[in-house]
Amino acid sequence: MGDPASPPSVAGKVMAILAAFLPGDVRLTLTEICRRAGLPLSTGHRLVGELVGGGFLERLPDGSYRVGMRLWRIGAQATEPRELRELALPYMEDLYAATRENVQLAVLSDDQALYVERLRGPRSVPIVTRVAAELPLHATGVGKVLLAFGPPELTDRVIAAGLHRHTPHTITDPVRLRAELARIRDSGVAGTDEEMSLGSRSVAVPVRSRGRVVAALSLVTRRHAGDMRLLAPALLTAARALSRDLDAEAGFR
Amino acid sequence: MGDPASPPSVAGKVMAILAAFLPGDVRLTLTEICRRAGLPLSTGHRLVGELVGGGFLERLPDGSYRVGMRLWRIGAQATEPRELRELALPYMEDLYAATRENVQLAVLSDDQALYVERLRGPRSVPIVTRVAAELPLHATGVGKVLLAFGPPELTDRVIAAGLHRHTPHTITDPVRLRAELARIRDSGVAGTDEEMSLGSRSVAVPVRSRGRVVAALSLVTRRHAGDMRLLAPALLTAARALSRDLDAEAGFR
Repeated sequence: MGDPASPPSVAGKVMAILAAFLPGDVRLTLTEICRRAGLPLSTGHRLVGELVGGGFLERLPDGSYRVGMRLWRIGAQATEPRELRELALPYMEDLYAATRENVQLAVLSDDQALYVERLRGPRSVPIVTRVAAELPLHATGVGKVLLAFGPPELTDRVIAAGLHRHTPHTITDPVRLRAELARIRDSGVAGTDEEMSLGSRSVAVPVRSRGRVVAALSLVTRRHAGDMRLLAPALLTAARALSRDLDAEAGFR
Repeated sequence: MGDPASPPSVAGKVMAILAAFLPGDVRLTLTEICRRAGLPLSTGHRLVGELVGGGFLERLPDGSYRVGMRLWRIGAQATEPRELRELALPYMEDLYAATRENVQLAVLSDDQALYVERLRGPRSVPIVTRVAAELPLHATGVGKVLLAFGPPELTDRVIAAGLHRHTPHTITDPVRLRAELARIRDSGVAGTDEEMSLGSRSVAVPVRSRGRVVAALSLVTRRHAGDMRLLAPALLTAARALSRDLDAEAGFR
């Protein structure tokens, strides 16, 4: 948002207020919004009031605020996640029907795995991801796929930024991570074993469009203790079908 | 956005620029954005540049603009559509698997039917709705449900605003519409027969939470010529299951 040395513009302040909701806290007080946006209460109060007036934020009866329906509607116009998820949903449904496990679709964004869609059954166990959440590349199945098939500089950047230990099983040694990524490039399948959260395991495969890896598809389970890679053929089948649809759509453009 | 007599504030201008994308045109030129937002090109150019810098908009190689991933991520934090669609998706998948028809979920918003989720098969025919689109209440199946079970003032407002004729089959006579809504309240099922687009037919039912109608679920087809109401039991079954889940969630709050 502009030169960090210059004071933020009003547009910059508006963006900072809206971005305060990004970490996924659905309700924030005015004080919390202003703290996260780095704004004095008086300025924050005036701008938040304007955003409520425009339907971009909603004020709840308890005085806290949440993202409004109008902002949701505008965000939903974003082309990239919409097209990908529209094409992916039927195959994700097939995977869910066949496995009854959590099914997830993620893309690379800001050196993180950005989840664009997730299916979970009414009675499946809660998992850490949400749609539009970002999780680290080195500790998730989809992240490892995006890392393995991304540019080499990406792995360098992720390692330089530090491999945070989310559980005792997270790979935090750069040499071990690089070896794991080479194996994933070889086999076309990634897996995690309690590396992001204890009790959760995943298997993930790349989704290609015109030969380039554009997304990763995964199954996450808390139930199975066996070899997760037995789920890979189901994922690979769905990913190939989705890739064909992506290629067909790209052909129309 | 504020007193129409006073000039719009910067926050108001930012909201007007973002709202320019609401009609569902995914790419807009700077000129088009400024025309829709009612801003001079110089002001628009500066603010659009700031929004691109913050990731709220994206500039494409051809110089046009679209909604950015960051704005999509913030919009996805909106609680109401997220919770409803998370609970509804498994049942919508079941309906899709059972019928292979377009499955839609809508809520009431600004006297329109706002589509919060839609499933369609990879090979099903294109239909007029998109996620986050708004369609008229009197001409759609979900709309008639929301109208029939909404407050009486809602029907008065919709009739006063004028019943636009989308096809020769749209109900534009207030007396006929009121009679149709009474029948829907009676039977718990709404239908349309080419009233929004020629060739499309739908059947829709209410989704309740704690006894109140909070959404409508529908099937839309271009294939069947028979009695669409034969699809109602499938919809009613899914809507009841979803209502139970909504009640259970509400109990936790």
